[in-house]
Order: sequence, then C-alpha cells, then structure tokens
Amino acid sequence: MFEDKEQELTPISKLGEFGLIKHLTEFFPLSNESSELGVGDDAAVINSGNKRVVLTTDVLAEGVHFNLGYVPLKHLGYKAVVVNLSDIAAMNATPTQILVSLAVSNRFPVEALEELYSGIQAACGRYKVDLIGGDTTSSNAGLVMSITAVGIENEENIVKRSGAKPNDLLVVTGDLGGAYMGLQILEREHAVFLADPNMQPEMEGCDYILERQLKPEARTDVKGVLEQLDIKPTSMIDISDGLASEILHLSDQSKVGFRLYEEKIPMDNLTITTADELNLNPVMTALSGGEDYELLFTIASEDFDKIKNHPDFTIIGHAVEKEEGNFMVARGSNQLVALTAQGWDAFLGNQYND
Amino acid sequence: MFEDKEQELTPISKLGEFGLIKHLTEFFPLSNESSELGVGDDAAVINSGNKRVVLTTDVLAEGVHFNLGYVPLKHLGYKAVVVNLSDIAAMNATPTQILVSLAVSNRFPVEALEELYSGIQAACGRYKVDLIGGDTTSSNAGLVMSITAVGIENEENIVKRSGAKPNDLLVVTGDLGGAYMGLQILEREHAVFLADPNMQPEMEGCDYILERQLKPEARTDVKGVLEQLDIKPTSMIDISDGLASEILHLSDQSKVGFRLYEEKIPMDNLTITTADELNLNPVMTALSGGEDYELLFTIASEDFDKIKNHPDFTIIGHAVEKEEGNFMVARGSNQLVALTAQGWDAFLGNQYND
Repeated sequence: MFEDKEQELTPISKLGEFGLIKHLTEFFPLSNESSELGVGDDAAVINSGNKRVVLTTDVLAEGVHFNLGYVPLKHLGYKAVVVNLSDIAAMNATPTQILVSLAVSNRFPVEALEELYSGIQAACGRYKVDLIGGDTTSSNAGLVMSITAVGIENEENIVKRSGAKPNDLLVVTGDLGGAYMGLQILEREHAVFLADPNMQPEMEGCDYILERQLKPEARTDVKGVLEQLDIKPTSMIDISDGLASEILHLSDQSKVGFRLYEEKIPMDNLTITTADELNLNPVMTALSGGEDYELLFTIASEDFDKIKNHPDFTIIGHAVEKEEGNFMVARGSNQLVALTAQGWDAFLGNQYND
Repeated sequence: MFEDKEQELTPISKLGEFGLIKHLTEFFPLSNESSELGVGDDAAVINSGNKRVVLTTDVLAEGVHFNLGYVPLKHLGYKAVVVNLSDIAAMNATPTQILVSLAVSNRFPVEALEELYSGIQAACGRYKVDLIGGDTTSSNAGLVMSITAVGIENEENIVKRSGAKPNDLLVVTGDLGGAYMGLQILEREHAVFLADPNMQPEMEGCDYILERQLKPEARTDVKGVLEQLDIKPTSMIDISDGLASEILHLSDQSKVGFRLYEEKIPMDNLTITTADELNLNPVMTALSGGEDYELLFTIASEDFDKIKNHPDFTIIGHAVEKEEGNFMVARGSNQLVALTAQGWDAFLGNQYND
C-alpha cells in the first residue's frame, strides 16, 4: 500500500497517540464474558471467576522514551517495570507478575542486556513482582522494550477512571514536576558533554529531581494507606503524561468537570528553583511534564476529614458538573485557566470548554 | 558501558535465543503464591483463585520476523495474533483476550496501521478473542509489534511441557514444513521482483504453502477434539521453531528421550514437491522449518485406540528413558539420526547424545 500514490495518506501525528489508539481499536467489541474492562483505562480487567485479573502493557523505544547517552541501562530496566506497576496501582490493585519482551539490535552485547535485566530484577525485588515470561528478538535498529504487568484483585477493590461524581475531592500523592525537571538537567548536561567531553557535568544538588526522572517509584503503597484510612477512591489514574492530561482523562470517563487550584499543586522546592533557573514556569512542569508516576484520584467529599491531615496526600481541587468544564483557578486570583492535554492555555473569560 | 573498552563483551549470537532468555532470567525466582508457572513453557500460568490465567507474549520485528516487501500488513496483523493464540492452545487452554503494543516509525501512515489492525481484528473475530489493551509509540526505525495473549482455564485442564513419561506416544496435528516452503517461494519471487519489477511472480498452484506462511491458524480446535476423544495429553508444545527443536523442549522439560519415525512425519504433497524443486530435503523443512503452528503432544499409550483413526492426528513416535536420547529413525532402515535444535545431523553408530 506504500506504492499507491493516488491514495491520500494520513500521517500518524495528525491523530496523536490517544486519537490513534481510539481510532484503531474502535471496531473491537468485547465478546468474552471474562473481558470486564478493555481499552481506555490504566489497565484492562479480566474476570477469572471469583477474582479479577488486571493487565497493562507499555512499550518503550530508544530515541523516543529514552536516550542511552545519559540513561544507564539498569535504570532503564527499573523504570520500564515501574511504569507498568504504576498502571496496576492506578487500578487500586497490587501488581504480582510481569512479562518482558525485547527487540534489540546486535550492537548490544549480552553484558548490556544483563545490566538492563539487573534493573528489572531490582524492581521485581523491590515490588515483590514475579517475572513470568517474555520474548527476546533481534531488531534492525536500537532497543524496544514491551512490558506487560499483571495484578490479581478482588472485584470490589478495583477503581476505574469512570467513577468520579460532582463534588468529589481531587487528590494527588507526592509532588509533581520533578521528573520533567530532572530530564531538563540530564538533557542540558548531555548537550554540554557532546560539545566538550572534558566538561564536568553540573548536577550537584539535583539528586532528587534526577532520581524522579531516572528511578521513579510506583505508588503501590497507596492502596494500603487508603485502606487504613477507610477510603475507597471513586476514580483513579496515574500521572504519566502530566496532571492536566490526567485530569482530562478522569473528566472524559467520569463525565464530570474539574476545578484545580494552582496554589494547591504540590511541588518540591528543588523542582521550583530549577524551573526558575531554566526560565520555565514551575506549574507548567506539573501540568504537562509527566513521568511523575504519582496517583491522582477522587474521593467522596464526606471522606475529607479522613485524609485532610495525611502528609502524602494533597487535595488539589474538586469535581463539578460536566458542563462546567475543566479549569485551573489561578494563584492569587479567581481567574480560570482552561486545562488542555498539552498543558494549559492562558484563557480568561469563557468558562466553558465544551 | 559501551565506552569501557577493557571489558570483553559477549555478542548475543554466542548464547542464542533460548540461551539468552535462560541466562537473563535465571536470577528471577517466583515469590508470589499466584505465580504457578514462569519462564520456560509456551505460556505462564497464574493462579487467580479458582481459575488459572494463562499468559504469553511474543515480539515481532520488521526485517527479522517479516519483510513488508512481500507480507501484506493485514496478514501480518493476523499472524501476529495467531502466533500468540497458538501458545495458549499449546497449554490446552482457550485464548480469550489479547493486548497489542506497537513501536512504529513515521514512514507508516495511519492507513498502514489500519490495514494491520484489520488483520488483528479478523483474527480476534475468527478466534473470538477480545482486544483489551495495548500501547502505541513511535520508533526510529521500522515496525515492532508485541502481543500478549491471555486464556482462562480450569487448573485440571492445563497441559505443560513437563508431563511426558517413557512409552507415551508422540502425536502431531496437521502437516509440517508447509510454512517454511511458502517462505522459500515468497523470498524467491521477491528476489525476482527486485531484479526486474516487470516479471510476473510464479506462484500458481502454491496457494496451500503460501497460506501456511502468510495466514497460519492456531489449533485452538484441538482442545475440544481431545476432550471429545476423552484424551488429556501428558505434555504439549506448539511447533513454532520446527519439529526437532520442539521435541527437544519436551525432552528437556519432561526428562525423557524420544524416538521419531521419519516415515510417519505428516507432510503435504505440495510441500514435498516444492522442496524437491528447490533441492531441499523435505524432511528437513518439517524438522527445522518452523512456523507451522501445529500442536505436538504426548499421550499415554493406553489412549492409542482412541486416537489411531483420527484424520487430523498422526502418531509420529514415542517417549523413551532420558538416557536413550533423542533420535529420528530413518525411513526404510533402522538407522538412528540424532535430533538437534538446528535440524538434524547424519549421525550413525553412537546412540546416546548426552
């Protein structure tokens, strides 16, 4: 079909990642009774009898998701696992198994793959997850990893993206924007190194944000903490693409709108000062940076007292009726800024985006 | 680590595919109670309570597993699914769900991915399997697909590679070698086309072997047929790498040897005549060709009467004690030929290969 010059072809970029998946999978209805939840959430859900099996898969490609010029292979292996475990955690399930597939060019010696697998092993050990399968093949260019993670959970514990109701509180774990700022530092120093290999990298004091980028953790601990607090979230998602994008996913699937309070967004001081140094808007790094792998969830407003004093949870907003749209309330004013998947637009006046 | 010139590095080719997987995964013990079976069979088995979840994953890379010069994208999508369903069938389980991940370069327009997904959809429809998830990313070169297939099965039905006992009968479904001969024809005609695009391809009468290569089917029907015959295999594997290699896998995991009778190996006439035309040994195509996706299994010798007249099953040998090794009994003689993963060695005299 590449030869047919008369047909007008559509570049993938025209649809974007989410549009492409939606477009390609729209004619795949679910027919098996055991298929409880398919494409469109953090993970799929299979009914295996009395339990539910939660499944997710992620593919990482060299030159797209990682640059081996500054990402050690061990960290890459660790992070590739964590990214998938985070999706299982975002279903309020505990990850138990992974499958790892690799397509790898001959320029990688066995020792390089050993490094990669030592990172995978470290993650398996840290999260008590078993490697149960996978596939390895050669490829013509670079390294492509595909990881599938599995969790087994009681049906009543599973939290989807679709359960938020108006007035629910919007809560986030940890702090945001750090992974993106870590990436900026790594890319800056890599560019300096390429220009002059004798230059010493200037990364002192950046440990926290570098670790957020190179060795993120999945919030598999949150499920237990919420159980102790006797809270079941009404909807949940992990923050892989940035806070704004994830809020829009919850909005889309729960059919509600959201109000996000800029001043409430939790950020580490190092993230803020580094953003300032690099002339970036700190809030922008939280909204659009991504890769923080924190959890974003909604809870019933009645649960406010249970969570309000917990040091690891921050209430950053609340759900509203769908017609009221998705907006950030700007710091120090009541101005509403429309939330968009690419980050945010300064958008004053019109309060409705649909 | 690529910079460390003092370290002696090992090319991946030195270990081979099976060696590499074994080497990389040997330090991953299973720790979750739900992980019943890990790396090393056609699929992994998870205990999700009362049922078992069977999981497998396969990665296909452009230029390694397929050449888009002669493999239509729709067929590629279909085959990529079938290859995984075959692994589930080889556990005596019924596939129910798949996850599809793609890394794809910008040279592919959306329409190309639609073609690919139309093949995936055709396979989902044919096998009543649900697409429940996946991931799509750009890549710097070519197309890499990773598919994970899932089946849900009662524990007592699952058949591993490890259950064969001495005197068990060795049985295969369908016929062998066809997919390999189809590939030879496709590659020959592609070479002719590259040399002179005006030449008409000579593929008349080759339909069967071309279909075996381009649009193989997974033997998900075998489970039901065996149930009707009241037979439960003692071990099972699918034929993806060639009969010899699969026999050695059963041997290795069941701790038995095998005798394979050359004259019993089922082959289609077209496979034999095409091999003769191309000066290839027809038996070699069955032993080492691969990609037939038939099932190879063992049954207790008492079940002989139940299966002997079934048109789709061929008894091709039997299991012996491990010390007796793995040999093919040559046609028209009692000469023993040692089975090797690469195919077979003419090997007369020494009857023991361990």
